[in-house]
Amino acid sequence: MGIIVQKYGGSSLSDISKLENVANQIVHSKDEGLNVVVIVSAMGDSTDRLVQLAKSITNDPDPRELDALLATGEIVSCTLLAIILKSLGYDAISLSGYQVGIHTDEAYGNARINLVDQERVRTELSSGRIVVIAGFQGITDGLDITTLGRGGSDTTAVALAAVLGADRCEVYTDVDGIYTADPRVVPNARKILEVGYEDMLELASMGAKMHPRSIELAAVYHVPIYVASSFNNIIGTLIHDQIKGNSMENRYKVTGVAYQLGISKVTVRSLPDQPGIAANLFEPLAAVGISVDTIVQNASQDKTTDISFTVATSDLAKTLDEVIPVAQNIGASGVVNDDGLSCVSIVGSGMQNTPGYASHMFRILADGNVNIDMITTSEIRISCIIREEQVLEAVRLLHRGFSLDDDG
Amino acid sequence: MGIIVQKYGGSSLSDISKLENVANQIVHSKDEGLNVVVIVSAMGDSTDRLVQLAKSITNDPDPRELDALLATGEIVSCTLLAIILKSLGYDAISLSGYQVGIHTDEAYGNARINLVDQERVRTELSSGRIVVIAGFQGITDGLDITTLGRGGSDTTAVALAAVLGADRCEVYTDVDGIYTADPRVVPNARKILEVGYEDMLELASMGAKMHPRSIELAAVYHVPIYVASSFNNIIGTLIHDQIKGNSMENRYKVTGVAYQLGISKVTVRSLPDQPGIAANLFEPLAAVGISVDTIVQNASQDKTTDISFTVATSDLAKTLDEVIPVAQNIGASGVVNDDGLSCVSIVGSGMQNTPGYASHMFRILADGNVNIDMITTSEIRISCIIREEQVLEAVRLLHRGFSLDDDG
Repeated sequence: MGIIVQKYGGSSLSDISKLENVANQIVHSKDEGLNVVVIVSAMGDSTDRLVQLAKSITNDPDPRELDALLATGEIVSCTLLAIILKSLGYDAISLSGYQVGIHTDEAYGNARINLVDQERVRTELSSGRIVVIAGFQGITDGLDITTLGRGGSDTTAVALAAVLGADRCEVYTDVDGIYTADPRVVPNARKILEVGYEDMLELASMGAKMHPRSIELAAVYHVPIYVASSFNNIIGTLIHDQIKGNSMENRYKVTGVAYQLGISKVTVRSLPDQPGIAANLFEPLAAVGISVDTIVQNASQDKTTDISFTVATSDLAKTLDEVIPVAQNIGASGVVNDDGLSCVSIVGSGMQNTPGYASHMFRILADGNVNIDMITTSEIRISCIIREEQVLEAVRLLHRGFSLDDDG
Repeated sequence: MGIIVQKYGGSSLSDISKLENVANQIVHSKDEGLNVVVIVSAMGDSTDRLVQLAKSITNDPDPRELDALLATGEIVSCTLLAIILKSLGYDAISLSGYQVGIHTDEAYGNARINLVDQERVRTELSSGRIVVIAGFQGITDGLDITTLGRGGSDTTAVALAAVLGADRCEVYTDVDGIYTADPRVVPNARKILEVGYEDMLELASMGAKMHPRSIELAAVYHVPIYVASSFNNIIGTLIHDQIKGNSMENRYKVTGVAYQLGISKVTVRSLPDQPGIAANLFEPLAAVGISVDTIVQNASQDKTTDISFTVATSDLAKTLDEVIPVAQNIGASGVVNDDGLSCVSIVGSGMQNTPGYASHMFRILADGNVNIDMITTSEIRISCIIREEQVLEAVRLLHRGFSLDDDG
């Protein structure tokens, strides 16, 4: 009997009647004879409310305590969902992160999964139970609660699907799939019915509905992910191993346009241009779990160099706390920052080895009077850091410029 | 360096500013050089709100799931309190029931503590930390979360005080001590400054501010309990080993008048009067953790017997579920119930071996036109089951009748 993992996000769980809808969907899968493992986020905006409660005390709540606090949100949703499933006559059991045995490192607020135990989940499944697991949380070797940070519940779902060898991981959310661009920004964006992990990874890291870490994990373990809406039965998007040569024409095109808000740029000025400088600067950030995105270094004539990099604006204060003392120690002339930035990207595995995409992108932005602050490229993605107030227009320009608009 | 255990109830923790007051009180004790272990209830009425959420799904939520849900309430308050303590510059750590290692049986909703681990708490204390522990919760051998039921957080506090050999257990609540009667009912009730475990046990079981199970545990381990208000510095009540002969005159008096609302009576009619009948009836109730209070059996002439007993009205539905099938099996003619009852008691270790208290009590109630439904007595307590609507008047009559009114 196959195993299916279903993940429901907070907007699908914002009140009891939505939880009941989700329960009906779950028992539908159970009735089809599948072993069902459900991963839930916290209800609605309850995580935000807990964060606000902690921040009403101090701007910098203790990370260990904050994680233990936040982890209660998913316990509430998974226990309530189990209560509903049982009231519908289905045997179900809720399991928290530590009850499953989701072992993580100790990076509070952004912990990484080291190992997921299978025993308890398999035992409950073999008793015929629907297993409802609190997403977003794990436990350290010292029995302390951690949360997995952004995309945490998706990552929990993919990790469970991987260790259980699930047929697929279904991610139910408030959108009915992955689009060529955010439909709220580009009304005639088209839904992507199938996408490979690589393209999805780039789309995800640029703000599409899933977090890249869950896509990465799915790619490594070949877990097919089906993204669909929990509010309707419209067909969603299947993310899976890319079928080479499936559609020659479509492969050589841009898959989608993505954007990301809330980006800050930090520039460390006039660093001595010598080996080890970059390491000195970025090691402390890695140590506190801050993810640095674009990094640009410009050596100048006077044997000094400027290093600029971007971080999430939510990490800016913490970043400056780390960077400013290091910059002083290693003789930089100053640290400046700009917190009003965003990123717009075009993504498509069709772009690799095909020149012209970058210049076409820059031309479209230039014609729209969008100034580019930084540029970063990967094999299958080209991203530009631009002013936040111009990003939605940039997405629309690029979507049209790369012929993604749905003219039907 | 001495260890002190402080327990704060929900009304002392109903919002962030109250939590901050509690934190100030805690650091005051810490500054005195004590090792401080704090036990917290859930904030304000948050447990009630979680119960209502579950009951909005079904009247009979799965007990295991309900416990895991409710246990989140104390996690929220203990993590927030730890965040506040750390923001005040004191090292503090929150621990949930399973992080401490509060091992219980599997009676969800009313679990009993089997064992409390000391290791984690002692380690944190010896690092100089204030340890903030979620009350009311424990963990089974199968890693499932349990809650301890009524008086759960007080019991957690006393259990920790016992295993740690604490100097005393301070219970901070919304009243400033134990009174000869509920001051809201009897305005001229007097505060009891010192009381022995036995009298307190009887007062507690009759509705005074603490739950009898915590008093019982304190008596067994000789843990002194100091009950006081978290809202002021008025001297409270010390519950400890009774000093014999401390005050000859006061010993031979009624210590206080207590009452309890929400009592239901269940009567099983015309049972065959043969050995084992009572066991057949009450074993299933014990098995599901229902506490039966007063039991009265009246054998009649026709070799049948009626058995009446009282339970908390909140347990009535569960009680009837268990009792009705058993009653049918063993040939009873029917089961009737009455859910509008209450209990009024006089308590005092001075009463033992001193006749006349019972008759005096019955006379006072009769003169006040209070009809007595059932009577139960212990060495140091006489209780009457009466109609709920008459109980407050009965408390006032007895308080005056036994000369407890404060005439100053």
